[in-house]
Amino acid sequence: MSAMGKPLIISDLLYTCERACELARDVRKTLHDAVLKLVAPEGKIDSLLFEQNQHAAHGYAWYTTYVAALEQMLAWGRRLEASGRFGELEQLILQAAFSEYLQQIYGGLPMSQGEFVRLADFGIEVRQRQLMQSPYTTLLREHGFTAACKKRIAELVRDGHFGDPALDDETLQVIRDQFRRFVEEQVVPHCHDWHLKDELIPLEIVEQMAEMGVFGLTIPEEFGGLGMGKMAMCLVTEELSRGYIGVGSLGTRSEIAGELIRLGGTEAQKQKYLPKIASGEILPTAVFTEPNTGSDLASLRTRAVRQGDDYVVTGNKTWITHASRSDLMTLLTRTNPDESGYKGLSMLLAEKPRGTEDTPFPAEGMTGGEIKVLGYRGMKEYELSFDGFTVPAENLLGGVEGQGFKQLMETFESARIQTAARAVGVAQNALEIGLRYAQDRVQFGKPLFDFPRVHQKIAWAVVETMVARQLTWFAGREKDADIRCDIEAGMAKLLAARVAWSNADNALQIHGGNGYAEEYQISRVLCDSRILNIFEGAAEIQAQVVARGLLTR
Amino acid sequence: MSAMGKPLIISDLLYTCERACELARDVRKTLHDAVLKLVAPEGKIDSLLFEQNQHAAHGYAWYTTYVAALEQMLAWGRRLEASGRFGELEQLILQAAFSEYLQQIYGGLPMSQGEFVRLADFGIEVRQRQLMQSPYTTLLREHGFTAACKKRIAELVRDGHFGDPALDDETLQVIRDQFRRFVEEQVVPHCHDWHLKDELIPLEIVEQMAEMGVFGLTIPEEFGGLGMGKMAMCLVTEELSRGYIGVGSLGTRSEIAGELIRLGGTEAQKQKYLPKIASGEILPTAVFTEPNTGSDLASLRTRAVRQGDDYVVTGNKTWITHASRSDLMTLLTRTNPDESGYKGLSMLLAEKPRGTEDTPFPAEGMTGGEIKVLGYRGMKEYELSFDGFTVPAENLLGGVEGQGFKQLMETFESARIQTAARAVGVAQNALEIGLRYAQDRVQFGKPLFDFPRVHQKIAWAVVETMVARQLTWFAGREKDADIRCDIEAGMAKLLAARVAWSNADNALQIHGGNGYAEEYQISRVLCDSRILNIFEGAAEIQAQVVARGLLTR
Ligand SMILES: Cc1cc2nc3c(=O)[nH]c(=O)nc-3n(C[C@H](O)[C@H](O)[C@H](O)COP(=O)(O)OP(=O)(O)OC[C@H]3O[C@@H](n4cnc5c(N)ncnc54)[C@H](O)[C@@H]3O)c2cc1C
Ligand SMILES: Cc1cc2nc3c(=O)[nH]c(=O)nc-3n(C[C@H](O)[C@H](O)[C@H](O)COP(=O)(O)OP(=O)(O)OC[C@H]3O[C@@H](n4cnc5c(N)ncnc54)[C@H](O)[C@@H]3O)c2cc1C
Ligand SMILES: CC(C)(COP(=O)(O)OP(=O)(O)OC[C@H]1O[C@@H](n2cnc3c(N)ncnc32)[C@H](O)[C@@H]1OP(=O)(O)O)[C@@H](O)C(=O)NCCC(=O)NCCS
Ligand SMILES: CC(C)(COP(=O)(O)OP(=O)(O)OC[C@H]1O[C@@H](n2cnc3c(N)ncnc32)[C@H](O)[C@@H]1OP(=O)(O)O)[C@@H](O)C(=O)NCCC(=O)NCCS
Repeated sequence: MSAMGKPLIISDLLYTCERACELARDVRKTLHDAVLKLVAPEGKIDSLLFEQNQHAAHGYAWYTTYVAALEQMLAWGRRLEASGRFGELEQLILQAAFSEYLQQIYGGLPMSQGEFVRLADFGIEVRQRQLMQSPYTTLLREHGFTAACKKRIAELVRDGHFGDPALDDETLQVIRDQFRRFVEEQVVPHCHDWHLKDELIPLEIVEQMAEMGVFGLTIPEEFGGLGMGKMAMCLVTEELSRGYIGVGSLGTRSEIAGELIRLGGTEAQKQKYLPKIASGEILPTAVFTEPNTGSDLASLRTRAVRQGDDYVVTGNKTWITHASRSDLMTLLTRTNPDESGYKGLSMLLAEKPRGTEDTPFPAEGMTGGEIKVLGYRGMKEYELSFDGFTVPAENLLGGVEGQGFKQLMETFESARIQTAARAVGVAQNALEIGLRYAQDRVQFGKPLFDFPRVHQKIAWAVVETMVARQLTWFAGREKDADIRCDIEAGMAKLLAARVAWSNADNALQIHGGNGYAEEYQISRVLCDSRILNIFEGAAEIQAQVVARGLLTR
Repeated sequence: MSAMGKPLIISDLLYTCERACELARDVRKTLHDAVLKLVAPEGKIDSLLFEQNQHAAHGYAWYTTYVAALEQMLAWGRRLEASGRFGELEQLILQAAFSEYLQQIYGGLPMSQGEFVRLADFGIEVRQRQLMQSPYTTLLREHGFTAACKKRIAELVRDGHFGDPALDDETLQVIRDQFRRFVEEQVVPHCHDWHLKDELIPLEIVEQMAEMGVFGLTIPEEFGGLGMGKMAMCLVTEELSRGYIGVGSLGTRSEIAGELIRLGGTEAQKQKYLPKIASGEILPTAVFTEPNTGSDLASLRTRAVRQGDDYVVTGNKTWITHASRSDLMTLLTRTNPDESGYKGLSMLLAEKPRGTEDTPFPAEGMTGGEIKVLGYRGMKEYELSFDGFTVPAENLLGGVEGQGFKQLMETFESARIQTAARAVGVAQNALEIGLRYAQDRVQFGKPLFDFPRVHQKIAWAVVETMVARQLTWFAGREKDADIRCDIEAGMAKLLAARVAWSNADNALQIHGGNGYAEEYQISRVLCDSRILNIFEGAAEIQAQVVARGLLTR
């Protein structure tokens, strides 16, 4: 009940949301047709038109992301309802998510700060737009996320319980709790210091994580892994990143290498590498980006020339995370110089000796230097130069040249889901840090929490973090079904990265001046969160992948 | 003309904008009444209701800010038109500003990331909201800021000309050019290094700025200043901050001290201090905030006890910028312990010896320590402890106790206008850095600039920076008329700070991975821009000041 005695929760909430969801799907369909008209007037996508109409195309990707998010939220509500756990907080979260996202669907959706997409941008007439509403959407928009609702949500999370995520799996629950304990004990007390000192995460932490199975989580049991699915990966990643993004990202390169080898490797390669990756004995590093080639990976230039039983590698890479303290590079190179596009690329499994602080790159034919970064520290980033660096030819992934790009693209799906889970963890961390500060800090004679502008920021962070989580889990489950899911992975990454960034931004604002002090955790979390929109496919590239997928498949 | 042959610029643009502006004013009036109904049902503002309805009240402040911004943009267009300089770029900027802000007025206005205020939040019925539109607003919304308009704006600024700001004053123009040259030559090549090394800005720079008159810009000529107005302050500040926020902020404390003494000081105090502040011989520092007292300044605790001819000061201050390398503190203290509110406060002009790196605080009865910060470096921030620190009683500002808070509040108007100008400078810098990078970096075979998602970000930054500038200048002109203008100053600061932040965020995004490297300027500009929403009154406090002013005066 609100202060005025009006009930806060809309009656027949699930039903109302379902009707609204149907309408949202209609909107999506309308946009789909509108965008197709813009970019494929002849029925086939015209890449020039696709580029010219990028705002609409990417906007469509965003709209679809919102619709998918609402679908997943509804499914979440239904699951909770079915098991009698659809409590007040969960109902309010569902209602708020629908209310706010519907508002944005009709009124303007921010793809980045100040960069809105609106129904008008699709060439849909005013009159038609008015028809795209219903009493259900209106009800949710007008009464779903009022000041009273926000206040109630904030009140309900004060004790640090942020709503039942409906995990519905005992094993996963146990894993989650185990990692939460680990993080609280081993990571939270130290990570801010690692960041400030710009140090590598201590090897003992890496070793403990290895023991807990982080690096072999999704590697099949026959190769020494735990053989778990992407849902487990999401949970573990979220919990680790909730402590520190650096720790939540230690497994990323193992996930990429493991997946590359599992899906694309020869049997011998699987036998040789998977068990050691799973055990953490081999720490991989992902070597794709080049100084002139980031988003447009397919045009990369680093050459691998076959000479006898070896490939000889020449070229420059950059932005390589954990490059020094790692043992195996998944190294994307051009083996066929006559193919300037993706078909000339091959993936090498290139072993390298671990570096030390004094000699970061001891391997013959390979040098490198550190890149100092705002956040996402703990593994360090490097630029690398290869000049006559050799890799045995048997280490060509899958044994056939020209497969590298597609092998990687398939793997990127996992990597992006994992990145979405990292973002959810960071978002949750920001939210919790902001909440705690708001409760502790007194101004004008009361805790900041009591001021609407403060607890409203918290309430929305609660809601949107749950939305990002549900969408990420959805992508994880889809991927477990082993179907192409770059669309789902892209949507999850796109949304979760934005949520992490805005949660951090708002939590910092709640800290006032102290948020700006390096001493306070939130200053780090802000910096950490900013990477999520950039790497593993920048936000614009993610929208591009989603839009193209939606329009062509 | 757009690609389709449709003219990009709405015919009768100024007339259309004027009609739209009228409607926007009607909206503002409706919101005014709606908020009054919420917070002053009995006719007088009920502070409990005001707080409970903070979302609506602050939202109203934001809406009013938008209306004021549109009014100023229209006035700008009219001035240009009158002098025959209303070119294509300027027309498009005007049109875009109206289009986007009207969209946000009707569809949702972001007070911070993800924190929207909408007409629905004021308890205005759906039907009434529909009446708040007209063919003029619809025309501007639908056709004012299309993808084609964005593209054209971006194209028109490629050469580094961002639209005529309609300064219309030769002297000011000369000053502006002079400072731009200074910044390009003396600041831009070095400031990133100062930031990375976390150094104080070299004294030579301070001295050069002193020679250029920065510290005495608004101090009357009779006291050795240049006797210029706030418009000059805005211009100089913007130009300096366009290079580096640290340099653009060197004058802030002189502005505060100068204004405090000019408006509140005794004749003797003016004679003694103003000339030396004007010449830069005295660098002041502003000592207000305390560990437990930031936004709620009126409740501060640092005591000044009269003992004979002295005040003896005891207490803790924090977040004091440039505290070590400065000569004079404007020190806000409580002289009357029986008055717990603002009436017990007095401002002391407390001299102190300049510190060195080894002995940052050589004064008797005063110690301090540095606070490490994300950005806004160059002067350093400190926490200070006073224990038996003495100030001669004759250094009580104005010679009468209990005036300190009101003296400061009056001064804050200038300080906030100056801060808005800093924000405009930072916003402009971010925009230019982003534009340059987009032109230089090639991906997918063409400059990033060619991709709509990239040049659209630039186009909006061009538009909104001009909006923030015009609103800031407006506040400056109002202040020159020596009338209370905390509303205008607050609006300018509120908006400009958000613009600086979103410009920096988007320019960083345009940099992709490189934006995250400390080596690139934009990584600093992002950090620098984040302070603007926090200090000189956090965004929420600014909205509070504006709302209260609007509702009570
Ligand atoms: C901290 C960090 C760690 C990293 N770790 C690794 C790693 O371990 N291994 C590795 O290989 N790489 C790594 N990367 C690289 C990362 O994947 C790239 O930065 C990313 O793919 C973006 O590429 P880019 O930086 O070259 O940006 P660019 O491709 O130059 O893009 C710049 C901007 O332009 C936009 N843009 C580009 N093309 C288009 C288009 N067609 N339409 C619209 N917009 C477009 C982008 O979205 C982006 O906003 C890392 C990067 C960082 C910052
Ligand atoms: C880099 C830097 C330099 C500075 N330089 C100086 C200086 O030279 N001299 C000086 O005196 N001070 C200085 N300050 C201090 C600055 O003015 C304060 O940080 C600012 O006034 C906010 O106060 P706070 O940090 O205590 O935040 P708080 O007052 O604790 O506020 C925290 C958050 O709560 C919000 N909030 C507070 N009250 C309310 C409310 N009633 N309703 C809604 N929301 C509310 C705020 O908007 C903010 O988001 C500096 C600060 C920084 C970070
Ligand atoms: C931009 C980007 C999406 C590729 O764009 P592109 O060069 O136009 O490539 P395409 O999308 O046309 O894909 C090339 C081929 O791979 C295939 N492919 C793409 N994604 C796939 C996936 N998820 N699963 C299987 N195949 C996939 C395509 O179907 C296409 O094959 P086809 O020609 O047989 O149809 C890609 O370069 C990218 O993701 N860049 C970001 C880089 C990044 O994330 N770096 C992170 C490093 S840590
Ligand atoms: C929150 C804040 C606005 C003051 O709120 P408050 O304590 O409720 O004070 P009030 O607004 O009631 O103002 C107190 C008195 O000062 C007066 N006053 C306020 N602003 C004024 C102005 N711009 N000009 C003249 N008088 C002013 C008020 O009229 C009032 O006097 P009255 O009682 O005679 O009417 C103020 O503390 C503030 O700006 N905080 C942010 C701190 C900050 O910016 N710090 C930066 C340090 S660098």
